[in-house]
Amino acid sequence: MKIGVIGGGQLGRMLALAGTPLGMNFAFLDPAPDACAAPLGEHLRADYGDQDHLRQLADEVDLVTFEFESVPAETVAFLSQFVPVYPSAEALRIARDRLFEKSMFRDLGIPTPAFADILSQADLDAAVASIGLPAVLKTRTLGYDGKGQKVLRTPEDVVGTFAELGSVPCLLEGFVPFTGEVSLVAVRARDGETRFYPLVHNTHDSGILRLSVASDAHPLQGLAEDYVGRVLQKLDYVGVMAFEFFEVDGGLKANEIAPRVHNSGHWTIEGAECSQFENHLRAVAGLPLGSTAKVGESAMLNFIGEVPAVDKVVAIEGCHLHHYGKAFKAGRKVGHATLRCQDMATLKAKIVDVEALIAG
Amino acid sequence: MKIGVIGGGQLGRMLALAGTPLGMNFAFLDPAPDACAAPLGEHLRADYGDQDHLRQLADEVDLVTFEFESVPAETVAFLSQFVPVYPSAEALRIARDRLFEKSMFRDLGIPTPAFADILSQADLDAAVASIGLPAVLKTRTLGYDGKGQKVLRTPEDVVGTFAELGSVPCLLEGFVPFTGEVSLVAVRARDGETRFYPLVHNTHDSGILRLSVASDAHPLQGLAEDYVGRVLQKLDYVGVMAFEFFEVDGGLKANEIAPRVHNSGHWTIEGAECSQFENHLRAVAGLPLGSTAKVGESAMLNFIGEVPAVDKVVAIEGCHLHHYGKAFKAGRKVGHATLRCQDMATLKAKIVDVEALIAG
Repeated sequence: MKIGVIGGGQLGRMLALAGTPLGMNFAFLDPAPDACAAPLGEHLRADYGDQDHLRQLADEVDLVTFEFESVPAETVAFLSQFVPVYPSAEALRIARDRLFEKSMFRDLGIPTPAFADILSQADLDAAVASIGLPAVLKTRTLGYDGKGQKVLRTPEDVVGTFAELGSVPCLLEGFVPFTGEVSLVAVRARDGETRFYPLVHNTHDSGILRLSVASDAHPLQGLAEDYVGRVLQKLDYVGVMAFEFFEVDGGLKANEIAPRVHNSGHWTIEGAECSQFENHLRAVAGLPLGSTAKVGESAMLNFIGEVPAVDKVVAIEGCHLHHYGKAFKAGRKVGHATLRCQDMATLKAKIVDVEALIAG
Repeated sequence: MKIGVIGGGQLGRMLALAGTPLGMNFAFLDPAPDACAAPLGEHLRADYGDQDHLRQLADEVDLVTFEFESVPAETVAFLSQFVPVYPSAEALRIARDRLFEKSMFRDLGIPTPAFADILSQADLDAAVASIGLPAVLKTRTLGYDGKGQKVLRTPEDVVGTFAELGSVPCLLEGFVPFTGEVSLVAVRARDGETRFYPLVHNTHDSGILRLSVASDAHPLQGLAEDYVGRVLQKLDYVGVMAFEFFEVDGGLKANEIAPRVHNSGHWTIEGAECSQFENHLRAVAGLPLGSTAKVGESAMLNFIGEVPAVDKVVAIEGCHLHHYGKAFKAGRKVGHATLRCQDMATLKAKIVDVEALIAG
């Protein structure tokens, strides 16, 4: 079976590493000459709107999936004429627009921060008066890793901010005094079977994920599964979805969904019976889903900007390196490490060891 | 770091799957147009004696390793002028010739079946008179998966057998009434650090490995490590070596070594903290070795001739498919499955499930 992937970054790379042992081949559509998934499959170097190359991709593969959600709707619609596309155009349409996403949460009875659609500075001023400060202004589309957003703390922060974010459609979100950030990675098969990985506790810095720790019997696991299950069913979703929540007052408020394999699920490569990458491929290919059970206790640490010395990383017992083969650049995700340990105490000690290498 | 691999079959493929997350790139030298490792790296399609392509490989990579031992000595010697080669030319010279191999065992005090060098039918007749029947006549080089050998049970079996095997240099080995076949996979670093995986119990059929089960605290583990350690040190070996033994009268008799990653170590991909493939690459690249400890209880079943229906294989809980992407052909190794379970009783039940698919 040949899988077409829109995007050829590290998520595509890890999909190929998971799918090759299943007998799958891969083709990546990515305009970047140095797309880091390229060594693991065919690289169609073209823009996402290039219909000649989209048609070529559709002709070559059995199905198409995505490694990022900001794919133009026209790309999905075009491909869908010729080849199955998972997740669906509708799931991508919702997930890539913060207004649609938040409105869906509200419609499904999933708690989420107060929000308002912002199409002008006047909209912003009115929404701030209604929602209050602090609040966060985010572009409705194309934001990631803290880009395309601004925290508003004082009335002065509000002045001219709509223009500052490019005068594009935005969403104002009320600030949530969260005690933690967790994510639930789920997978849904073509026949509707759904499995959930354990909740993951995430630590961000400057808007970029730094550390994910898979939890053991988290008290909010059931509630999170309920919320995520509603979204998966509503979208008749196929594949892996990651759902980010704020922990607030012992409950959960929905932050956002990612209709794809997700950074907070990278620990599953070693830390779960079947990884998010394999399970995504199983789902889109119509294969039975794999177990989402943990193997030991796991954490994932991102390497931002550069990968520490490889010999030092692999010298840490239980530490598994994932080097993305990308050029090093400040603020760029260039690799991660998974720690897999027998118990939480050991895991915490090893996290300190890896953090020392990152700081080093 | 770019690694050159002589041979582009499934072992090369699994080396690349293990090395890519370490940030390594791969180039495979293999004359076969459909070499199954090719999708994971550069494919230099050339004969192993093609000096132009060997020189190109040496210029492109940081070091060279092998996925099979029948590489011509001239190839190794030629490459070694330009680039580090692991394991060494000497290790390959010994391992690819059954006479040198058996003589080394004897010199190192490692028990091995009685053997005799056979260069003619007269040699064979004399050796049979001395060693007795049953015995096994094997070509000194190029044998694998039961090829290039013949079991001699009666005096009639001996007549004309030297010519039958091609009138090439052979070894006659006394038949050993073994109660089991086990292998020890070991890895030795450039600095001499050595680690051993748990002993594996192997079941063959028609000379081809069918089932490997990783043992739990095998009583002969220490003895096997002693024997294998002698060989590794003698050869100043760098990389993974597999050592096959017969279990005889509660002891071990050496059968043969493979100076490479080995089929009986495939279970380590999921079943050990660090796989034989990653540890081989760590060793040849001068990185610290990874843990050889087991993760749960594991077994490996080979798929010979064809891979059973993928949906049925992955539906078995704890079953991990490794499809080599090769054309199906009777007698050919085209994939394997690793089972990883919590306990031996579950493992045994799952082995029956996979065997039913293979028979199916």
